[in-house]
Amino acid sequence: MGDFTAMLSLPLLLSLAALCFYPSTISSMPPPRFSPKSKYAPRFLGKPSRSNYSAPTYQYDTRYFDQNLDHFSFSNLPKFRQRYLINTDHWAGPSRAAPILFYCGNEGDIEWFAANTGFVWEIAPRFRAMIVFPEEEAYRNTSTLAHLTAEQAIADFAVLITELKRNMSAQDCPVVLFGGSYGGMLASWMRLKYPHIAIGALAASAPILQFEDLVPPETFYQIVSDDFKSESFSCFNTIKNSWDVIEAEGQKKNGLSFLSETFRFCKKLKSTAALSDWLYSAYSYLAMADYPYPADFLMPMPGNPIKEVCRRIDNCPDGTSILQQIFEGVSVYYNYTGTVDCFDLDDDPHGMDGWNWQACTEMVMPMATSKYSMFPEYSYNYTSYEEWCLGDYHVKPRPNWITTEFGGHGFKHALKTFGSNIIFSNGLLDPWSGGSVLEDISESIVAIFTKEGAHHLDLRPSTAEDPDWLVEQRATEIKIIRSWLDEYLERKRAVLDM
Amino acid sequence: MGDFTAMLSLPLLLSLAALCFYPSTISSMPPPRFSPKSKYAPRFLGKPSRSNYSAPTYQYDTRYFDQNLDHFSFSNLPKFRQRYLINTDHWAGPSRAAPILFYCGNEGDIEWFAANTGFVWEIAPRFRAMIVFPEEEAYRNTSTLAHLTAEQAIADFAVLITELKRNMSAQDCPVVLFGGSYGGMLASWMRLKYPHIAIGALAASAPILQFEDLVPPETFYQIVSDDFKSESFSCFNTIKNSWDVIEAEGQKKNGLSFLSETFRFCKKLKSTAALSDWLYSAYSYLAMADYPYPADFLMPMPGNPIKEVCRRIDNCPDGTSILQQIFEGVSVYYNYTGTVDCFDLDDDPHGMDGWNWQACTEMVMPMATSKYSMFPEYSYNYTSYEEWCLGDYHVKPRPNWITTEFGGHGFKHALKTFGSNIIFSNGLLDPWSGGSVLEDISESIVAIFTKEGAHHLDLRPSTAEDPDWLVEQRATEIKIIRSWLDEYLERKRAVLDM
Repeated sequence: MGDFTAMLSLPLLLSLAALCFYPSTISSMPPPRFSPKSKYAPRFLGKPSRSNYSAPTYQYDTRYFDQNLDHFSFSNLPKFRQRYLINTDHWAGPSRAAPILFYCGNEGDIEWFAANTGFVWEIAPRFRAMIVFPEEEAYRNTSTLAHLTAEQAIADFAVLITELKRNMSAQDCPVVLFGGSYGGMLASWMRLKYPHIAIGALAASAPILQFEDLVPPETFYQIVSDDFKSESFSCFNTIKNSWDVIEAEGQKKNGLSFLSETFRFCKKLKSTAALSDWLYSAYSYLAMADYPYPADFLMPMPGNPIKEVCRRIDNCPDGTSILQQIFEGVSVYYNYTGTVDCFDLDDDPHGMDGWNWQACTEMVMPMATSKYSMFPEYSYNYTSYEEWCLGDYHVKPRPNWITTEFGGHGFKHALKTFGSNIIFSNGLLDPWSGGSVLEDISESIVAIFTKEGAHHLDLRPSTAEDPDWLVEQRATEIKIIRSWLDEYLERKRAVLDM
Repeated sequence: MGDFTAMLSLPLLLSLAALCFYPSTISSMPPPRFSPKSKYAPRFLGKPSRSNYSAPTYQYDTRYFDQNLDHFSFSNLPKFRQRYLINTDHWAGPSRAAPILFYCGNEGDIEWFAANTGFVWEIAPRFRAMIVFPEEEAYRNTSTLAHLTAEQAIADFAVLITELKRNMSAQDCPVVLFGGSYGGMLASWMRLKYPHIAIGALAASAPILQFEDLVPPETFYQIVSDDFKSESFSCFNTIKNSWDVIEAEGQKKNGLSFLSETFRFCKKLKSTAALSDWLYSAYSYLAMADYPYPADFLMPMPGNPIKEVCRRIDNCPDGTSILQQIFEGVSVYYNYTGTVDCFDLDDDPHGMDGWNWQACTEMVMPMATSKYSMFPEYSYNYTSYEEWCLGDYHVKPRPNWITTEFGGHGFKHALKTFGSNIIFSNGLLDPWSGGSVLEDISESIVAIFTKEGAHHLDLRPSTAEDPDWLVEQRATEIKIIRSWLDEYLERKRAVLDM
């Protein structure tokens, strides 16, 4: 994949982007930065506002499958109905061992993922493939939340695929996995754990190394900061200087009122922490969605939105306050259409949330900020992380579990002679890229990254505005997937000929 | 491994042998054959009578590790204390990246497995290795039985290894897995699921294909029968003819009393089914333990015990009844020392049993007998199997789960280009060999089988009576394990040199 690493950037159309910062400084100083309670905290998946989104619509049947809630024990738990979307319009069927393109559903509404994963829909005809988009439903229900784990999710997929193939006499049809963000992690892990079920996986923007100390905890926010710095050093500095100003203002009498007015919040801020969260979220999402053309993910934004943020910050008239500059900047994220009168923080601490639960159980991704970032310096502190989880979710995280189950420090080393057929795709503007796989591990476990790309644009529907390098990246991915299928069929034929 | 496939047989010292027949014809005709209730039913592990056993004793520390009962969900379940045995006498330590030989504990007392797995103890000095024997404890307790699954077991091992290495600063020390019978299945599955934790596995007599219809359900009993037939056709025929005689006798008035007396049961038989079970068990264990020299597994037996059974059956004086012949024969198994006055069936249907539970949950291994066997013809009937499980354990089996989780029909095909470093060792006299891997899958996932071997003799302590082919087999296994370690260290060094 060496030919690809030198490519220019890939602005990933933000699809499944939203990421979670997880618990942090809620109860400690300096002020909260990664508040897990705020809906503005970056996460893998936000709840997209339907009204804003105008992605292509695709045709599919919606079906349900009775799934075991717990595959790994026999406690007589109830089943749950797993929803999946299926399209067989282009499928050449079992007689031709035609492939099944299987999207590893993230924690969220699968229809939304289906609508935002155009790549799979677009390649299906040329592969004469069936398309399946299963949903991970456990996140919807507090009573089933305990079983919302990556291991159960990929086991769900394994059972669903097996049953689906049996019902369609499609046992010989190869399955190719797709996933972006958390779904990309699931895709790569599923290929590793169920090689007999799927012949390969395209794992887009999958930060499978964002655990323990596999990468420095500062990685994510450093990339966010670098995205801004590379657009404009003065913009980066304005943001970097703004935190002290916010803190100082918050200390003043009526300071919170003043901040609330300046940032046009509908209700008065209760703390500067809430404002910080709101800003952290904006900067993080802007970095994830730093695409080269206008996109409408969680929020409609212009192309190269960070450039626009910095243009606004840098071009304020002389004498504009730093707070006003910041407000002008983040309005690119929160109010690009200019239709919002006031902003509602809506930080309901009682809102149940699947991803936060996962962050408090197995998805423990250490986050910190260094002094080289545009954020106030903050060290990762597992103890307060755990306290937050115990307090809010009454659950004790297992911070070493994911690396035990799926691989930690020895991961790449082990895979040099084990496993095959995984593409890790990334865009280096994406702050999650730092926790993903950015180098080829073996001949067929490969990394494709693009310098200017952001969060898994490759999975998005193609558009007329796609830059050449995006077109080329997708072509490379298709070529690799084609080679997996060819190799599979060749071996299959060899067995039949014997 | 081609050089090995032509070898003569390997009589495996029966160590972990006992196998389970699983539910079957309890409620159907012909009479029960695979009664899961009888302690005489073949199973992976029986409860060995300590008094009988005189295996070498090895030195180790006994330690405990607080283990999560459920790795794959967060239901706030209690932890359990996992016992493990450890020896570091010969270990060259972290500085030399000295290996850890890790035995995948079956469902049973780990001290007994340690004592009966001399191979691991004997090779430790030459590899300058640490030895660890963990126990699977969940089977001991009905409240934890729901979590007694292979997936939890190998996750237990993964967590234990990770913590052990962390505590001993041994993160770079390669782990090699060992296991026999069910433990062999765990070893091979663990290598496949946790390649980042163990660099290879010796899976002895591991019938990982004894699921669904991967092999014919008649396989097991056909091998038992063939073992007898190849010793003596008349012996085979006597056994084959005995079932009708037993049935006919059971129909008579006082027939059950007569049978009880003939077979010296302490209490009167309640049905001919109980006698059949008792006989099935004897024949099956005899086949598993058909070793070339005297051994003392569940029962002390002579070398080549089937030859001795058939000698006794065939050499009865003229006029000896067929029932008496059978009794003389199976006494080789049940009473070789001649010290037993009467036999206690002890078929307590209420006895909780870890392996039967597993057979009723995920370890659904279809069993049947063909007309070519020495047993009455019996077809596998999943419906009655399920009924038995629902009745006795209130649990519904998942007959397709193991193949979904670990691989079914496409298993070998998938592993041709995925995975590495597994030895599947078998002896063809062992009835479980038919459900194991008997052909090389790839360059490093290899099959070593010996024509005259039985159930995982290679894992037993070496003895002065070891035939050459056994010595040679172990040497081959050591050579392969050495190559895994060398390759690991070479790659490790290459990384350090970079």
